[in-house]
Amino acid sequence: MLKQWRSLLSRNLSSKTLLSGKWGDARGALCPHGFEPRAAFSTSVHDFSATGNSSANARLFAPYKIYKGKAALTVHPLLPTFSKIDSGTGGLRVDRCGVIMLTFCPAIAERKYDWDKCQKFALSPTEVGSLISMSAHGASEFYHDPSMKSRNSGQVSKKLSIKALDGGNSYMISLTVTNNNLKSTERLNVSVTTAEFAVLKTTCSFALPHIIGWDRLMNQLPKGIEGSPSKVNPKQHPDLEWDR
Amino acid sequence: MLKQWRSLLSRNLSSKTLLSGKWGDARGALCPHGFEPRAAFSTSVHDFSATGNSSANARLFAPYKIYKGKAALTVHPLLPTFSKIDSGTGGLRVDRCGVIMLTFCPAIAERKYDWDKCQKFALSPTEVGSLISMSAHGASEFYHDPSMKSRNSGQVSKKLSIKALDGGNSYMISLTVTNNNLKSTERLNVSVTTAEFAVLKTTCSFALPHIIGWDRLMNQLPKGIEGSPSKVNPKQHPDLEWDR
Amino acid sequence: MLKQWRSLLSRNLSSKTLLSGKWGDARGALCPHGFEPRAAFSTSVHDFSATGNSSANARLFAPYKIYKGKAALTVHPLLPTFSKIDSGTGGLRVDRCGVIMLTFCPAIAERKYDWDKCQKFALSPTEVGSLISMSAHGASEFYHDPSMKSRNSGQVSKKLSIKALDGGNSYMISLTVTNNNLKSTERLNVSVTTAEFAVLKTTCSFALPHIIGWDRLMNQLPKGIEGSPSKVNPKQHPDLEWDR
Amino acid sequence: MLKQWRSLLSRNLSSKTLLSGKWGDARGALCPHGFEPRAAFSTSVHDFSATGNSSANARLFAPYKIYKGKAALTVHPLLPTFSKIDSGTGGLRVDRCGVIMLTFCPAIAERKYDWDKCQKFALSPTEVGSLISMSAHGASEFYHDPSMKSRNSGQVSKKLSIKALDGGNSYMISLTVTNNNLKSTERLNVSVTTAEFAVLKTTCSFALPHIIGWDRLMNQLPKGIEGSPSKVNPKQHPDLEWDR
Repeated sequence: MLKQWRSLLSRNLSSKTLLSGKWGDARGALCPHGFEPRAAFSTSVHDFSATGNSSANARLFAPYKIYKGKAALTVHPLLPTFSKIDSGTGGLRVDRCGVIMLTFCPAIAERKYDWDKCQKFALSPTEVGSLISMSAHGASEFYHDPSMKSRNSGQVSKKLSIKALDGGNSYMISLTVTNNNLKSTERLNVSVTTAEFAVLKTTCSFALPHIIGWDRLMNQLPKGIEGSPSKVNPKQHPDLEWDR
Repeated sequence: MLKQWRSLLSRNLSSKTLLSGKWGDARGALCPHGFEPRAAFSTSVHDFSATGNSSANARLFAPYKIYKGKAALTVHPLLPTFSKIDSGTGGLRVDRCGVIMLTFCPAIAERKYDWDKCQKFALSPTEVGSLISMSAHGASEFYHDPSMKSRNSGQVSKKLSIKALDGGNSYMISLTVTNNNLKSTERLNVSVTTAEFAVLKTTCSFALPHIIGWDRLMNQLPKGIEGSPSKVNPKQHPDLEWDR
Repeated sequence: MLKQWRSLLSRNLSSKTLLSGKWGDARGALCPHGFEPRAAFSTSVHDFSATGNSSANARLFAPYKIYKGKAALTVHPLLPTFSKIDSGTGGLRVDRCGVIMLTFCPAIAERKYDWDKCQKFALSPTEVGSLISMSAHGASEFYHDPSMKSRNSGQVSKKLSIKALDGGNSYMISLTVTNNNLKSTERLNVSVTTAEFAVLKTTCSFALPHIIGWDRLMNQLPKGIEGSPSKVNPKQHPDLEWDR
Repeated sequence: MLKQWRSLLSRNLSSKTLLSGKWGDARGALCPHGFEPRAAFSTSVHDFSATGNSSANARLFAPYKIYKGKAALTVHPLLPTFSKIDSGTGGLRVDRCGVIMLTFCPAIAERKYDWDKCQKFALSPTEVGSLISMSAHGASEFYHDPSMKSRNSGQVSKKLSIKALDGGNSYMISLTVTNNNLKSTERLNVSVTTAEFAVLKTTCSFALPHIIGWDRLMNQLPKGIEGSPSKVNPKQHPDLEWDR
């Protein structure tokens, strides 16, 4: 746990720093119990190209696709995973946070893409917040190490850059993958129109409460709905803001 | 498949070009497996005028109606259709993307409209993104060929134009239908107030995640909710961003 | 039908005119089959004051309340009503449109309100659009005749005015009820903070798709979800934009 | 009832005053039957630190976490509680309003927080409205007395301050707890990035209709859905805006 905790902190450090330039901001928004890079999703590339979605926990495939001259970008949310709380309360807690998964696949010909060379970048909730709050003159950069804290740590680094052009008349979304073993650098660029970016902002804003798990929290039956509050036992209901 | 693929590309080409002026943007947002003009909706005009909705897959009729002096505009979403994935995973994928259907019917008298002369225009998700991101000084134009890639291709072209007037104090929505066989051109204009346009923006923003299918994706039960993550089998859960 | 149709048109005429100053805008957004002032809600004032909600079709009472020095304003949505379509399709259509109901009750003492003298104003979807799109310097006025087209028509007129003050630092919401029989005019003023107005905008934006019935439209199971599209019968699926 | 009513009024008085500077605004938005500081939530600190959620009525724990150098802030919504209406209508009404709960825990070392010294602040719906409408140059302050109207009233006062810095490039959220018995003052500061604040605005906007109970109101089956409106009994359906 502590291991992935630190990995998350450094992970957020890199992406937050460029947003705020402040070390105080380095420890960004965590999922409950931390975001785990090795999350619970199968990623068979063949499946992905076939279905546009590689999540083991998604039985429905509905990516938003932006196919351009140099690369194809597909965007889809991955829901959080939950685990039972050990105490016998029957409660659940978010085990792994959801993400918005960006998948870039390079073009190999006019409207043909190499589905075996796709690269992924998983936006955390706070990185989604950065995307949806981007102004028509803004820019964001995020840095991930996909195998952080594993023995492959540092082998590969990924940088996602989102830049507004012409005062928001279009946007450039670029993924740069550097592999220090292979001494290789791949760069995948997708030019996005205002209309497409509006779809991204609207659908990611819709998805955000879902990937942090708030939508499920809302759909629970609230206590007290069965009985009158007069039956409430004060012992069980101390002051909302006052417990010490 | 390839046929409708190309038809979609050209279809998006026309509408995107005027938005961005860039050929690189020509290959716009696709529905999974492409948007198919011959989509799964019955369009009996009589039914439509009777119910305000011509979708075979909609059992509920709830269009938003804007009735003006020269024409009536009704707006309603059509949900995507899904198909089973051949592999025995029980998975579904979006087969045809949803749309926001605009229907224009000409006025023939004070508050009377000719329900037999209605013209339709189906906004794709990206065209909806263009509508909801329109500024108080903006303008958008979309071009469709309703029978693209069929033997009737090119016979008819439709142009939808949305223009802000008086700095957003009102909007003009115009549909122009040109029939090269009949050498005819129809133009249907509906003047829309700021209040009505706000309803369009708000309801289309609400509908957008639904017409791309993300709402259903969200309502699935996430994996891991039944068991503790300690039971997770690493083989099934490779690195989220790291599969090659 | 025609009767309530005309009544709706004149009703919208009054409210739209001040928004756009255009007669062309007079025929505003209609609910399917028109908005009927005599809608399906019981309005026992005693019930209302007791429960904060007078809708016969609402079994849950959750108004948003703004209690001020001169009057109390409570706000709650009323859902549309549906009716079966005569044809045996099992389809439903919106019979009466939903509204956002504003209820004003005058203060009779410090923090005491006369629940027997409440006055109501039902915002139509387009009037809600006007509220949620109001700028920090805007103003809106709506005129209703609650008994329009009945034999009591013209006896009473209601005017709702929403005005931004101090560049949006606060808002004044006023309901003026003129009774020509009693030669009386009542005016109920509620001063609303930016924070309270933000709650109104956010909750009314949330409610808008629901009061026009789009939320239910979204929750239907789309066709084709059971079978593969290859089984689709072309006869039943003519061109989406192409039916004449 | 009157007791907690007054406590709410004074409670809102303090928080509203700084927003509007107007006494007329002092009586802010109430939950149905008033917001009760002693709400129905268990607050075992150990549970809280363990689960990130102390709501007795939440069986799912999904807080949004912002961990910084001086303190950790976790944010989660608490749903309203409902009670049956005495009359045999089977109706429910909101008994206690939901809130957005902010929990601040002080740092005791690099990335270590003292979960036993957490302080809570429960944002009412109107206070949430103030947060989501905050501009890039705005500031809000709210004052609560957690034991208001109890015999401990006045012992402790809490002040929450939210300030935009650098024109919205970051935000400072501070909770100051003054204990007059212990002559102590605690101050917990969390610096929040634009991206994190965007997550707060988006998720709190999503949560707002839920904490006032409107989401459940929307999910009811509307009346008339079973039958044709022709069967409607006029006695039960007087004029919508016209009951005296």
